[in-house]
Amino acid sequence: MSLREDANTLIRAALDAAMPDAAVRRALESADFGSGRVVLIAAGKAAWQMASAACNALGDRISGGVVVTKYDHSKGDLPRIDIHEAGHPVPDQNSFTGTQAAIDAVSGLSSQDTVLFLLSGGGSALFEKPLIPPEDLDRLTRELLASGADITEMNTVRKRFSAVKGGRFAKLCAPAHVFAIVLSDIIGDPLDMIASGPCYPDASTCAQAREVARKYRLTLTPEMEKLLGEETPKELDNVETHVTGSVRQLCLAAEEAARKLGYRPQILTASLCCTARDAGSMLAEIARYHQDTKESLAFIMGGETVVHLTGHGKGGRNQELALAAAPGIAGMRDTAIFSVGSDGTDGPTDAAGGYTDGETNARLAANGLSVFDVLQDNDAYNALKVSDGLIMTGPTGTNVNDFCALLIRR
Amino acid sequence: MSLREDANTLIRAALDAAMPDAAVRRALESADFGSGRVVLIAAGKAAWQMASAACNALGDRISGGVVVTKYDHSKGDLPRIDIHEAGHPVPDQNSFTGTQAAIDAVSGLSSQDTVLFLLSGGGSALFEKPLIPPEDLDRLTRELLASGADITEMNTVRKRFSAVKGGRFAKLCAPAHVFAIVLSDIIGDPLDMIASGPCYPDASTCAQAREVARKYRLTLTPEMEKLLGEETPKELDNVETHVTGSVRQLCLAAEEAARKLGYRPQILTASLCCTARDAGSMLAEIARYHQDTKESLAFIMGGETVVHLTGHGKGGRNQELALAAAPGIAGMRDTAIFSVGSDGTDGPTDAAGGYTDGETNARLAANGLSVFDVLQDNDAYNALKVSDGLIMTGPTGTNVNDFCALLIRR
Repeated sequence: MSLREDANTLIRAALDAAMPDAAVRRALESADFGSGRVVLIAAGKAAWQMASAACNALGDRISGGVVVTKYDHSKGDLPRIDIHEAGHPVPDQNSFTGTQAAIDAVSGLSSQDTVLFLLSGGGSALFEKPLIPPEDLDRLTRELLASGADITEMNTVRKRFSAVKGGRFAKLCAPAHVFAIVLSDIIGDPLDMIASGPCYPDASTCAQAREVARKYRLTLTPEMEKLLGEETPKELDNVETHVTGSVRQLCLAAEEAARKLGYRPQILTASLCCTARDAGSMLAEIARYHQDTKESLAFIMGGETVVHLTGHGKGGRNQELALAAAPGIAGMRDTAIFSVGSDGTDGPTDAAGGYTDGETNARLAANGLSVFDVLQDNDAYNALKVSDGLIMTGPTGTNVNDFCALLIRR
Repeated sequence: MSLREDANTLIRAALDAAMPDAAVRRALESADFGSGRVVLIAAGKAAWQMASAACNALGDRISGGVVVTKYDHSKGDLPRIDIHEAGHPVPDQNSFTGTQAAIDAVSGLSSQDTVLFLLSGGGSALFEKPLIPPEDLDRLTRELLASGADITEMNTVRKRFSAVKGGRFAKLCAPAHVFAIVLSDIIGDPLDMIASGPCYPDASTCAQAREVARKYRLTLTPEMEKLLGEETPKELDNVETHVTGSVRQLCLAAEEAARKLGYRPQILTASLCCTARDAGSMLAEIARYHQDTKESLAFIMGGETVVHLTGHGKGGRNQELALAAAPGIAGMRDTAIFSVGSDGTDGPTDAAGGYTDGETNARLAANGLSVFDVLQDNDAYNALKVSDGLIMTGPTGTNVNDFCALLIRR
């Protein structure tokens, strides 16, 4: 097996583990729904896939349910499930209709029943029932965006104008038990942030919401003033949450695959957030230190890097990370660095990420390319194409951030 | 012991290992000078300290020698050693006089004799005998600096106008053996770069030197034209080089100290070169991933980060690295991140570096300080002062870059 094949094995293992199907199946292994009814509610961009996996796993145990997903994201009928497609990132009437259908489906349940709540990214827009007229909500959103308020401040205010956000949907499900499976697309899995946390206790308070409104001088109708004073749930005793398919799982799956291939693997972090270039050069410097190793090593990091646009080329953060590592590992034997986005589309390209090894720099030089110049032009795609370093997976149907790895084979 | 005390123990161990005295003593352990004469030649900012350590270790075995160091860097007489202080970073007549004394001291030695050559940073200016008139050398240096030539290009040309650089001093020592001890202050220990490599084979060629002269349209006298054609040594069979006291040793000493304190230590790299902020936030993200650890962990990195000046505050790269980590580790128990410059003076401050732990962020907030704002103003010193996070060692007398570490104690 070549080093590139080792890399591909890690990538395949990581992406498989992060797919909604596998993630839902894994989370359901610990589920015990007793003898009551099981109502499925799925919201988010991966809602259909998560619901489909649950239907396959549980069959007739699901008595009915509702899916609210983005337009063109449903792939067909599911037994006893009412499927709604709606607007994202801006909610539309179909979001509200779908969400109302979900609220109706969980009404009147008993304490013996379970709501199987499947949540994925995009749920903030797709799963919404505003408590104020849509035009007031639109105006508020525009004011907040123009104010410079950060995402936490925005959510602190907006949750109070929603019937389902900030833990309120879980209250609507009571007395039924809520078994929530969350496919996390935010680094660090902040459950109150993912899809605005419909089934997670809200840490923000009315006092904080009023402070944000005052700070940014938001225009509030009397109705909105009143809602700002209505507290969100601070505790929820009917919810059990399983976070799955997160970037942590990407890393753990890559770690396991590396171990099987004979590497001593180590995950350094699952919340990488620096620039792509620095992450790449950091991995190269780790490679330099460990060149004398007697055993094969794999260093793995997950997260989401950032790219500063300085040029007009073609690329993505994963391709840039891999390319930035090339000069640092130039000439090193059996040493490779690669980075992959779990959604399979890195930046506006058809590649999922990039792969470089000890020979990449020389290959680029032979083609008259300098990594420094290519990075200045943000043109990693074309450079990796020349050095046979593009990783192509096609769209994967999930999005739980990226992972990158350094392999040193001995 | 507090976590801060653990950090201090690592810092003390690392700095001790990198001191010229310890470094020279360690390198001399493997020395066997036979029965011939031993002539000591020391050049660089740490020359006096290295020579003093060698005199202490070898006593009468040293038959004589020459030290060339920076003004005010000699701390007194050494037996049978001729001490010269000279200009740095710009060489002056005393540099040339001292270097000529060294050349005279190694002339006429036999193949039984040894030149103990002690080299440290600053040697490029302090150890020099130009082959062209000083005014021509001055003009060339100015032209090169204005041209945009990189350091490698500059050295490729300048070595050819020197009687001692680029391996030529070792040729002057022949047939005597050269036992060189190099205190490295450049990441990666490039021996041809440290003090321009007086005793190291020169990888650059006459053809490359001519190409640089052509590329930047350098003004060359007929004498200089001729010298550009005289090749530097490509092989040296009379030299044995020991690199010591480098950043790698800083890291190894910290690793050993951490192990003794009960941590499982790991050096990630000895060639860190990203921005101080990214290195700090990277260590914080590594801390986040490993919070569940059952055993105490120490992650160690060596190198030299960079700082982008965006404000007018007081600080240095090590202080900035530590401070940048504070928000990421806020609230984490028994978790600390610190960074120290081995010279004991980080930036234009009296601190050697900075220390932060899980409580730092709250302490700063209680004083109305936001890490983001402080970093924007490059004012880490004053923030760390408030949070009791300044590391003070005083000037150490060595300079082998920095090291930083993450400690998680369980």
